Amino acid sequence: MERHFDEELKELKEKVLKSAALAEEAIAKAVKSLVDRDAKLAEDVIKHDVPINMLEIEIDQLCMKLLALHQPAAEDLRFIASALRINTELERVGDEAVNIAERAAVLITKPLLKPLIDIPRMAQLAQRMLKDSIDAFITRNAGLARNVCKRDDEVDSLNDQLFRELLTYMMQDAKNIERALELILVARHLERIADHTTNISEDVVYIVEGKTIKHHIEEMERENKNA
Amino acid sequence: MERHFDEELKELKEKVLKSAALAEEAIAKAVKSLVDRDAKLAEDVIKHDVPINMLEIEIDQLCMKLLALHQPAAEDLRFIASALRINTELERVGDEAVNIAERAAVLITKPLLKPLIDIPRMAQLAQRMLKDSIDAFITRNAGLARNVCKRDDEVDSLNDQLFRELLTYMMQDAKNIERALELILVARHLERIADHTTNISEDVVYIVEGKTIKHHIEEMERENKNA
Repeated sequence: MERHFDEELKELKEKVLKSAALAEEAIAKAVKSLVDRDAKLAEDVIKHDVPINMLEIEIDQLCMKLLALHQPAAEDLRFIASALRINTELERVGDEAVNIAERAAVLITKPLLKPLIDIPRMAQLAQRMLKDSIDAFITRNAGLARNVCKRDDEVDSLNDQLFRELLTYMMQDAKNIERALELILVARHLERIADHTTNISEDVVYIVEGKTIKHHIEEMERENKNA
Repeated sequence: MERHFDEELKELKEKVLKSAALAEEAIAKAVKSLVDRDAKLAEDVIKHDVPINMLEIEIDQLCMKLLALHQPAAEDLRFIASALRINTELERVGDEAVNIAERAAVLITKPLLKPLIDIPRMAQLAQRMLKDSIDAFITRNAGLARNVCKRDDEVDSLNDQLFRELLTYMMQDAKNIERALELILVARHLERIADHTTNISEDVVYIVEGKTIKHHIEEMERENKNA
């Protein structure tokens, strides 16, 4: 029984890693399609989210099987219950990559509004956060997970900065409006990807330490103690 | 043991109902603050998402306790594992309501761009979807859950229609841009709320029927059969 459990847990980790790798690749390709103005690549991302969706279903089934047959306890129980949620987050990262590719497909048909600097930068940050959050999950590294949560602010502030800049473009010339709006949406999708990696990382801290850091609970508790 | 399990399951359902009621109220208030131009009400929604956040943590803990102590099987296991995910969806609905209230707080300070008709309509649809998805969860009603999934298209098409209309406003006059952009974001938050209720409903079908309807799996299987 024990050996079987360990093998299935290993299979679960492998599938989660696979799903994360596909999601990371989808983000990279979606942003590359926008930067390189490559309509074929954008189409490729839009059409190929099926593997992530299929993996989501497989991971769900595996988690349910592990819960039903092995009745895990303590950290293993938290790991498997969290895997159910992390799985959903990964699938949504894939959806956001598709959303970005859809925006890219529109933008490619129009002249370039401005050189793309902040969007590739946001994408890099988000991809790195995704990679680290999944590494933290697999190796049960709460320190790395907390570090990912901190980086979310950087993505948020890039998003705010870009929003204000694009608003200025829209005000200057009505011909800029559609393209600026599309870029605002791309930035928001990237910001949401960073949010998903933060959710994953919060779950990792919960798995390892058995306590929640959602909703800044720790800060609230510290403040109450000091009050 | 059995009696204890039933009592804790009842407690879980009550807490989920409470969380859903708070989320529904937050959507209603956020949209009302926008329609009535009531800055105090918007502020109220922004400040009061703490109860939903606290409930999210309580529901998580209760689910983990039920999984660890009672090792439920079959439909009960699916119910509790799904409750973990549904809980997350409800908390995010609360977040979207806060986002709407934040947009409302900005819009209230500026003259009205256009009479608000589609946004209250979208909000009504989304609220009703939320209510029905949670009723379907509590009463394990797969038919009602499938019905909620179907209604998502109506919200999506209202969102698309409003997007195009607001784009026209932006093109006509640069003075409209900021307000139209805020309204586009409000509509997108409502559309996301409808997405969350669809996710909840997909989980309900899974609980009751033990099969997934995510990613249009059923249609894909039917098509493969007919091919």
